[in-house]
Amino acid sequence: MSVLAVGSVAFDSIVTPAGRADSVLGGSATYFSLAASYFTEVRIVAVVGEDFTTDSENVFKKRSIDTRGIQRAKGKTFRWGGHYLENLNEAKTDFTELNVFEQFKPRIPSEYKDSQFLFLGNIHPSLQTAVRTEMGGVRLTGGDTMNYWIQRAHKELIETLKLVNVLLINDGEAKMLAGDNSLARAARKVLDMGPQALVIKHGEYGATIFFDEGTFGVGSHPFRAPALPIEEVKDPTGAGDSFAGGFMGYIASQGELNREVLKRALFYGGVMGSFTVEQFGTERLQSLTQEDIEARFQIFRELTHLE
Amino acid sequence: MSVLAVGSVAFDSIVTPAGRADSVLGGSATYFSLAASYFTEVRIVAVVGEDFTTDSENVFKKRSIDTRGIQRAKGKTFRWGGHYLENLNEAKTDFTELNVFEQFKPRIPSEYKDSQFLFLGNIHPSLQTAVRTEMGGVRLTGGDTMNYWIQRAHKELIETLKLVNVLLINDGEAKMLAGDNSLARAARKVLDMGPQALVIKHGEYGATIFFDEGTFGVGSHPFRAPALPIEEVKDPTGAGDSFAGGFMGYIASQGELNREVLKRALFYGGVMGSFTVEQFGTERLQSLTQEDIEARFQIFRELTHLE
Repeated sequence: MSVLAVGSVAFDSIVTPAGRADSVLGGSATYFSLAASYFTEVRIVAVVGEDFTTDSENVFKKRSIDTRGIQRAKGKTFRWGGHYLENLNEAKTDFTELNVFEQFKPRIPSEYKDSQFLFLGNIHPSLQTAVRTEMGGVRLTGGDTMNYWIQRAHKELIETLKLVNVLLINDGEAKMLAGDNSLARAARKVLDMGPQALVIKHGEYGATIFFDEGTFGVGSHPFRAPALPIEEVKDPTGAGDSFAGGFMGYIASQGELNREVLKRALFYGGVMGSFTVEQFGTERLQSLTQEDIEARFQIFRELTHLE
Repeated sequence: MSVLAVGSVAFDSIVTPAGRADSVLGGSATYFSLAASYFTEVRIVAVVGEDFTTDSENVFKKRSIDTRGIQRAKGKTFRWGGHYLENLNEAKTDFTELNVFEQFKPRIPSEYKDSQFLFLGNIHPSLQTAVRTEMGGVRLTGGDTMNYWIQRAHKELIETLKLVNVLLINDGEAKMLAGDNSLARAARKVLDMGPQALVIKHGEYGATIFFDEGTFGVGSHPFRAPALPIEEVKDPTGAGDSFAGGFMGYIASQGELNREVLKRALFYGGVMGSFTVEQFGTERLQSLTQEDIEARFQIFRELTHLE
């Protein structure tokens, strides 16, 4: 089954303690799509500028990602520059040039309308709502957001959350959205806003999925997946989007939609995030094999499972 | 088999968003002993003052903890006061009155000399080394330390680490001890200092155990245990010491000493820590049943195990 991803395609300039990369392909929809492409058919809706080359487009095509939804606009592609200090948990932004992304209005090709799974990347909540409404018949919608929208477009975000089945955000975003410093309480409050499941990403500590009582089978116990302790994280950029791609891609590859599938999806999210940080940009995500992914999944399992 | 715990007994005054408790029984050896007492025989070496009442001693006796090693000294028992802000991860110290603890010289009763397991609580590394040396024949030594000793008694601590089999510290301590901001690299560097296993506690994110290659069976993959997402943490004081008590107590209760036992011990550490934070001070740790512990262990398992 296919996943439709809406979000950003960008060129990133990144400095980390392990080195640097200039104007490399990035953006939330890019990382998401590449990660998801190892599990299922992926379609992308995004906007790029005149500087988006055939080489860049080929990164998607080599992974059989449907690029008919990539809109071309006059001007330059979204550019972001950032650096990471020795503690790799937080990016410091050096510059943000929205360029063509500033006026992005997602247009969904008619061939995409039968997508069964939808991922609303981190864009304005009103655009997320419009896309979700247009894609009426999807089976499951995943969504992302960020502090900027929680603070600046709160009302619109509250409307979006009613349409999102699984929200994927990090600790700080969950606490800010709920206005509560306890993660467990914040989770319950966010679930009360609409989503049937909430994935909170803890960076190097993994992720937790919280379930609305009863929706995905009996019980509402949360579930935790680890992250891999990695000695050299080269570049954390895109880890969260790769996580979302692995998570949604795995779900879309399964016939059933239940608690066990979502738990495994959480592991595959961690697996895809762990590959991304091993190289700069999308480099590692471009060259994986199914064997790499299954081997890493087994390592994640050994990392947490008692005999 | 029995565990000997050396550390502090104190009276704590604690303020948290959930309330307050004045002059309640606390201290690293107290939390450790109570947690370990649900798994195995426990013996304690500590010092108290003239204000240590029969009621306080009965808390240990009711859990069948051997208190012959509690030394009585002229003066007052160690007192600590602290508070927690809304983010419960870090205690702010209001006062520290070392009192009789300042001159603490652990004296090990001859009846304790056959203890097979030893836990060196957070005291001066020179005292830890002296105790370990005196307890020549122990099968496994666990140890704790803190930033204060890492900075002020570094040389002595390096000597202690050569005698400790399993070191239990938190993220910040591991990074400071190794002088490395990557947790995975820090772990390897600490293992190079002597311990055969290193437990790094991540607070609300659980804990990871790193193994020296080959010591506890084949392989050196780390292992992670979760912490329970708890909506109301009443008082985090003693959670780390309770973790150590559950961890060491479980190990001491087993005949074998291998990787699987240490992995399960990590889960039981999390289990005991999760009980402690539910009430102020040692209240919850005084009244558990084996059924409570096994039920919580199952919840921890469900929290992380795929079918």
